[in-house]
Amino acid sequence: MPQPLDPGQESVHDMDPDAFRRHGHAVVDWIADYLDGVGDLPVLSPLPPGDVTRSLPGALADRPEPMADILRDLDDVVLPGITHWNHPAFHAYFAITGSGPGILGEAVTAALNVNGMLWRTSPAATELEQVTLDWLRQLLGLDAGLSGVIVDTASVATMTALAAARERADLGIRERGMAGRDDLPALRVYTSTHAHSSVEKGAITIGLGRDGVRAVPVDADFRMDVDALEEAIRSDLAAGVRPLAVVATVGTTSTTSIDPVPAIATALDRLRSEVPGGIWLHVDGAYGGTAAMLAERRHVLAGVEQADSFVVNPHKWLFTPIDCTAFYVREPEVLRRAFSLVPEYLRTTDAEDVTNYMDWGVQLGRRFRALKLWMVLRYFGRDGLEARLRFHLELAERVTAWVDAHPVLERLAPVPFSTVCFRARPAGIDDEDELRRLNAGVLDAVNRSGEAYLSHTELDGRYTLRLAIGNLRTTPERLDRTLAAIDRELSART
Amino acid sequence: MPQPLDPGQESVHDMDPDAFRRHGHAVVDWIADYLDGVGDLPVLSPLPPGDVTRSLPGALADRPEPMADILRDLDDVVLPGITHWNHPAFHAYFAITGSGPGILGEAVTAALNVNGMLWRTSPAATELEQVTLDWLRQLLGLDAGLSGVIVDTASVATMTALAAARERADLGIRERGMAGRDDLPALRVYTSTHAHSSVEKGAITIGLGRDGVRAVPVDADFRMDVDALEEAIRSDLAAGVRPLAVVATVGTTSTTSIDPVPAIATALDRLRSEVPGGIWLHVDGAYGGTAAMLAERRHVLAGVEQADSFVVNPHKWLFTPIDCTAFYVREPEVLRRAFSLVPEYLRTTDAEDVTNYMDWGVQLGRRFRALKLWMVLRYFGRDGLEARLRFHLELAERVTAWVDAHPVLERLAPVPFSTVCFRARPAGIDDEDELRRLNAGVLDAVNRSGEAYLSHTELDGRYTLRLAIGNLRTTPERLDRTLAAIDRELSART
Repeated sequence: MPQPLDPGQESVHDMDPDAFRRHGHAVVDWIADYLDGVGDLPVLSPLPPGDVTRSLPGALADRPEPMADILRDLDDVVLPGITHWNHPAFHAYFAITGSGPGILGEAVTAALNVNGMLWRTSPAATELEQVTLDWLRQLLGLDAGLSGVIVDTASVATMTALAAARERADLGIRERGMAGRDDLPALRVYTSTHAHSSVEKGAITIGLGRDGVRAVPVDADFRMDVDALEEAIRSDLAAGVRPLAVVATVGTTSTTSIDPVPAIATALDRLRSEVPGGIWLHVDGAYGGTAAMLAERRHVLAGVEQADSFVVNPHKWLFTPIDCTAFYVREPEVLRRAFSLVPEYLRTTDAEDVTNYMDWGVQLGRRFRALKLWMVLRYFGRDGLEARLRFHLELAERVTAWVDAHPVLERLAPVPFSTVCFRARPAGIDDEDELRRLNAGVLDAVNRSGEAYLSHTELDGRYTLRLAIGNLRTTPERLDRTLAAIDRELSART
Repeated sequence: MPQPLDPGQESVHDMDPDAFRRHGHAVVDWIADYLDGVGDLPVLSPLPPGDVTRSLPGALADRPEPMADILRDLDDVVLPGITHWNHPAFHAYFAITGSGPGILGEAVTAALNVNGMLWRTSPAATELEQVTLDWLRQLLGLDAGLSGVIVDTASVATMTALAAARERADLGIRERGMAGRDDLPALRVYTSTHAHSSVEKGAITIGLGRDGVRAVPVDADFRMDVDALEEAIRSDLAAGVRPLAVVATVGTTSTTSIDPVPAIATALDRLRSEVPGGIWLHVDGAYGGTAAMLAERRHVLAGVEQADSFVVNPHKWLFTPIDCTAFYVREPEVLRRAFSLVPEYLRTTDAEDVTNYMDWGVQLGRRFRALKLWMVLRYFGRDGLEARLRFHLELAERVTAWVDAHPVLERLAPVPFSTVCFRARPAGIDDEDELRRLNAGVLDAVNRSGEAYLSHTELDGRYTLRLAIGNLRTTPERLDRTLAAIDRELSART
């Protein structure tokens, strides 16, 4: 017998408002139950490749399906294939964290469904973005010379910064491009060996190539070596290369190390007379930048007042669902010079000084992402945000203390934020391959157990475990259970 | 007296599950009421620049704010500044349309908050994306040689296609970049004078420059002139230029004209021996591609079986909230060659043949966008989707018939989809400036009235009004009211 359909499914319009209300309440209840129980699910999905695919039909059904069936498949097909970033024991990569107000903000954004490409296509989308990013700027203690725009990811922000640097170098690249010209020098971007891969990817995308990125060595604490940077730039200048930009990182991906931004800025200042137009300084604080909200950590963003651009991801450590990247620039007119193209069909009669964010980057279509950030900031308040960040830093100190007191573990990097790098090195084992097998074995066993999810990196040739804190559901008790699981797998192997 | 706070606000964790349930129901009710009443609001926001900004505090409050206050500000501050893309009389640009199942899908995505960068970071995110895009491919009648990935916008898809074309040309650009090399020819992309501005923006971004784009003339119906294309490529080849790609459009932005993709593909085939590696053919069907779902319109995507890549936006005319762009490629390995970078911290022990979508483009962070598309497709079903598209095409025929029968209006382009281009040309007025003033005046008056929102373009020097159909709430009656409003403003001026 065919199931009854919801109103609206046989019309040519949207889901009927009453049906929306009913299904919406069911979805909210589903989410509340999910978030309440996520700690009991395996963190890393245990499914083998292809399992989800095999659970789904090969083609869409002709007939509408009742929402109840779709929600049932969320439980039966989707959830088992989810790696739970919401889980209190998700400690891999950076432990990004959404939140209740962020989820509700995202629902409202989807409902309003505006495209904020132009000011007039929703003044509130543009102005709320400006205001909310200004609030965030103040929270981070940054100067008022920075203007913000929300983009999807830090990868795009960094690529955009590199494109702006290329534009400011005034080499006619927007008009004439780079290929087949004999009047262009080689162009180069400098970043540390510990910078995020998005710097290299951005450089590849905008046509600088991998050779267009010079990886500057780091010191023993994985921070960019500023003398080496200056030397690299000077030797490139001597060879006729045009240095375009330096990307410094506050909170590198492997160890969360902090490049010495003030010293980098000073070095770039010294070089100013040799590079007309200057070298663009972009600061990638995608994860670590958020910590500057705390008075006692404000120093992590020292030097940003001399930077040309800065990126921080509220979708990482500021409780906002992915995606929400705050990208700040000192000279928005350079972004506009690099990217603005206004065909007739996008011309408006609005005042010349309104901000049309489509002019600031690659994408024309722009979701109203500011709304969720605005709701998150207001719901928690400055005090609440600070309390949560401090709590995460305390949890990281707990892990640090555990590693440091452990007879078999050794810590492999300082812990400036909430990510701890360590490995097992039992007495008598010095062979790096053997240590790699041991630590990779522990990691794999812990992850497969579903108890916790950690990731790894490599530091000076040493296979390194990473435990990142950042989830709003993590408690000291649950964290201790994760540490016990690591201990258990370690004991089973030593 | 201070207001009572919600549970969770004074903790260091997320909003409490009970509070989420309560606030979630309130938000769902808010959305249901909003969608139910949106037709009574002014389509274009009447606020002057700065008004929303002035309604907001200059800094975030220290203390958490109750959700009730935030929701009240949605009504008081945000809604008046919204241009209602959900309004049944939103006919500007392309009339994109979300839907109930899409909004609920977005809420679930925000709740799960996974980053689908790697297969293992949520197998269901990757596999549901593959399966749903395969369903969509079948719905559009496209061949099985196309593999899909969801990106945020067609702007990014097109830029990615151009970067893939650059990679396939095998000029060592990924490694060595383009600047300062004397072994590279000039590179060029061809697209019609009616292509979307994102083609030029993509070319600027990847370093080809505006000169790297050759605008091919169109015929009287605004379709790319294939002879002119072939001639342009041959003359460039003779001059030593390397043709990289052709971007053809199915549904151009101004008039929704359809470039002759089969003839373009045949021309590129003829040129194959002269361009080792071939010229990449990218088809931009961001808006129009969706119509291929209808058997009687399947022909609009003829030729895509010979294309290297194709883009269609479910967030435009497929009832999915922004952003959701389906990008199909024939050789994903070229995308991977262009973009894949796997630092140690993103290496996995997963099977070699799993898809890690981070390898397919610029962005590392990837929202689980497939979920909303999957929910939209299932909730409406193939029959329901087709009925809605047919209904929009019928509404567009209604507008076309009205224009064609109108004593003062003239239609300025064929109507292959659901967008109608026209202008007023009263007897006796032939001066283009006068006609521009008249039509711009009508447009501005209709838009300011809040009754409807139309946009404009320019066709062969003629100021042109555009009326785009695509909203799930539009009815024949409401549409007639819009046509009457146009008539009224026209009568007031003639």
